[in-house]
Amino acid sequence: MFTREAVLDALSKVNDPELHRSLSDLKMVRAVHVHDGRVEVTIALTVPNCPMKDRIVADVQTAIHALPQVEDVKVNLTTMTAEERKSVFGEPTEGMAAKYNRVKRLVAVMSGKGGVGKSLVTGLLATALVHEGSQVGVLDADITGPSIPKLFGLCGPINAGPVGLLPLRSEAGVKIMSFNLLLETDDQPVVWRGPLIGRAITQLWNDVLWGDLDYLLVDLPPGTADASLTTLQSLPVNGIVMVTTPQSLSAMIVRKAVHMAQIVGVPIVGVVENMAYFTCPDTGKRHLIFGPSHADEVAELANAPVLSRLPINPFIAALCDEGKVESVTLPEVASMINTFIEAVPSMPAPLNLDRVS
Amino acid sequence: MFTREAVLDALSKVNDPELHRSLSDLKMVRAVHVHDGRVEVTIALTVPNCPMKDRIVADVQTAIHALPQVEDVKVNLTTMTAEERKSVFGEPTEGMAAKYNRVKRLVAVMSGKGGVGKSLVTGLLATALVHEGSQVGVLDADITGPSIPKLFGLCGPINAGPVGLLPLRSEAGVKIMSFNLLLETDDQPVVWRGPLIGRAITQLWNDVLWGDLDYLLVDLPPGTADASLTTLQSLPVNGIVMVTTPQSLSAMIVRKAVHMAQIVGVPIVGVVENMAYFTCPDTGKRHLIFGPSHADEVAELANAPVLSRLPINPFIAALCDEGKVESVTLPEVASMINTFIEAVPSMPAPLNLDRVS
Repeated sequence: MFTREAVLDALSKVNDPELHRSLSDLKMVRAVHVHDGRVEVTIALTVPNCPMKDRIVADVQTAIHALPQVEDVKVNLTTMTAEERKSVFGEPTEGMAAKYNRVKRLVAVMSGKGGVGKSLVTGLLATALVHEGSQVGVLDADITGPSIPKLFGLCGPINAGPVGLLPLRSEAGVKIMSFNLLLETDDQPVVWRGPLIGRAITQLWNDVLWGDLDYLLVDLPPGTADASLTTLQSLPVNGIVMVTTPQSLSAMIVRKAVHMAQIVGVPIVGVVENMAYFTCPDTGKRHLIFGPSHADEVAELANAPVLSRLPINPFIAALCDEGKVESVTLPEVASMINTFIEAVPSMPAPLNLDRVS
Repeated sequence: MFTREAVLDALSKVNDPELHRSLSDLKMVRAVHVHDGRVEVTIALTVPNCPMKDRIVADVQTAIHALPQVEDVKVNLTTMTAEERKSVFGEPTEGMAAKYNRVKRLVAVMSGKGGVGKSLVTGLLATALVHEGSQVGVLDADITGPSIPKLFGLCGPINAGPVGLLPLRSEAGVKIMSFNLLLETDDQPVVWRGPLIGRAITQLWNDVLWGDLDYLLVDLPPGTADASLTTLQSLPVNGIVMVTTPQSLSAMIVRKAVHMAQIVGVPIVGVVENMAYFTCPDTGKRHLIFGPSHADEVAELANAPVLSRLPINPFIAALCDEGKVESVTLPEVASMINTFIEAVPSMPAPLNLDRVS
């Protein structure tokens, strides 16, 4: 017959799925009762309503059932006290979360120009990647004009985890963090000068428990000042998706962003042209509302492929306004996602990064 | 018969139209020859190709012709040397130009959200005000994503005047200054942190000889960070035009800008909704491409009237891309300009401002 020790040994090999340390090591294993073929264990979650709790229970079940002669496993849940958390993780410090994050690819969505659809492209990419089976996060680096929470239909509050803030989960499973989720109301202005803006962005990296991600997409604000500088210089970005629109005015400003990317040495993985045309629902005719495309010249300058040309579509605008960017279905997205996946350089090893400054 | 002294006396009453000091005082009057009814004078312009030279010649002609018995007046032009300029104006210092500027109304065009058409609205307002007979300037405060020069079809170089940089003149006569005009190429990025961005904006006020203006319009970039903060706190802005689009996502971010305006205490004079609808050229039907209007709620929050709802129109986009924003004719603009003029608070006296920091 298996023993209590065998159960404890089995649990010492079960890792917290985001903290990457064993439940025993994290002092999450509490009572363990063994009676005939039945096992009852109590696991202390690090925070109440831990978003990983179902996964943890399943992993515990699997590990104990793997022991010979186990007939029944019951898992009770409790939550650590603040003192217990402190004894395991230490005093919360800046950058503590970053140590637990394992991000395989960090991609910035950039434009230079405002209102071209960076957040829409970020939302479409994130959704497509999740549907393709990847773990995806979106870091909203637009501190003063954030669109991401509204696009995904999310609002605060944000909960604190044992080592940092916990991102929200969208309906499709994208992890989302935006400074706007930390504000009291969504239309409260952030009237800050640049250095604080940069600091807010590094905090969204340092102090958020992103956990394991195949892709973390960073939605940049317009311009080539603080937010772009901090993101491209302080975060380990390994690719940029450049968004443009057909207006040659936009193209000129997007070229500035391309030049900035070249100055800081971050490769551009592709160009997306948004608002390329409007198809009249009555006649089916395509209207080049914002003029002929300039995507090819931007792509040539960026030395990157055109990933997609997205139409102007009232249904897209309506879904975005309803917080349902994940319900947007566009054939253009399906066709771009393969090129995107191939174009994003894979890292030699997952980024397991300490805090940045 | 009139004498040389009478001519000199007449000239001592002619002012330089932008520097507001007499030509004598500015040591611009050089040779004066009087022979019978004929007068020949030489005027030294402060800089080569002074944009005011025709006006100065006309004013000199008028003043001398006003003397009795003058039959013919010949005005020769020359240019001051750098030494002569220095002896009149002193060593060039920061903020020297600001002392010569007389601006009656300073209006910021703001949104918070990018790509909603702030620069288009600025261009349309400036053009309409010039056609209505006002002296108008446009200060492009979007340092990293400037649209103004391209909209007006202007490119550098910028010339230095005796006390500061000379704005360019658009075809319709709008005085324009943009940081982009000071760059070597128009797609060179300005990769600066916020404090430098703020400093660039104050320099566009302090070191540009705007001269006499009925309206100086400041085209703000997206966001509520450095550029907006510096403009609304350091420059004596006496009204804001808030630009929005129908997307409720935009409206949320525009509300942030409205709240910022309220925090810094600058009144909003009106709201312009851009991209309100698209009229299909084939069917004449209006399509609400970006959804139903949110202008009224923004206006209510801003406690200001909706000045106009502008359509999406491929012809506008094409004219803007060709640098011909002044050729855009829209009935919507004509109808908004009266409300705008009434809504902008008139100053008790023209701003004759020293440098700001």
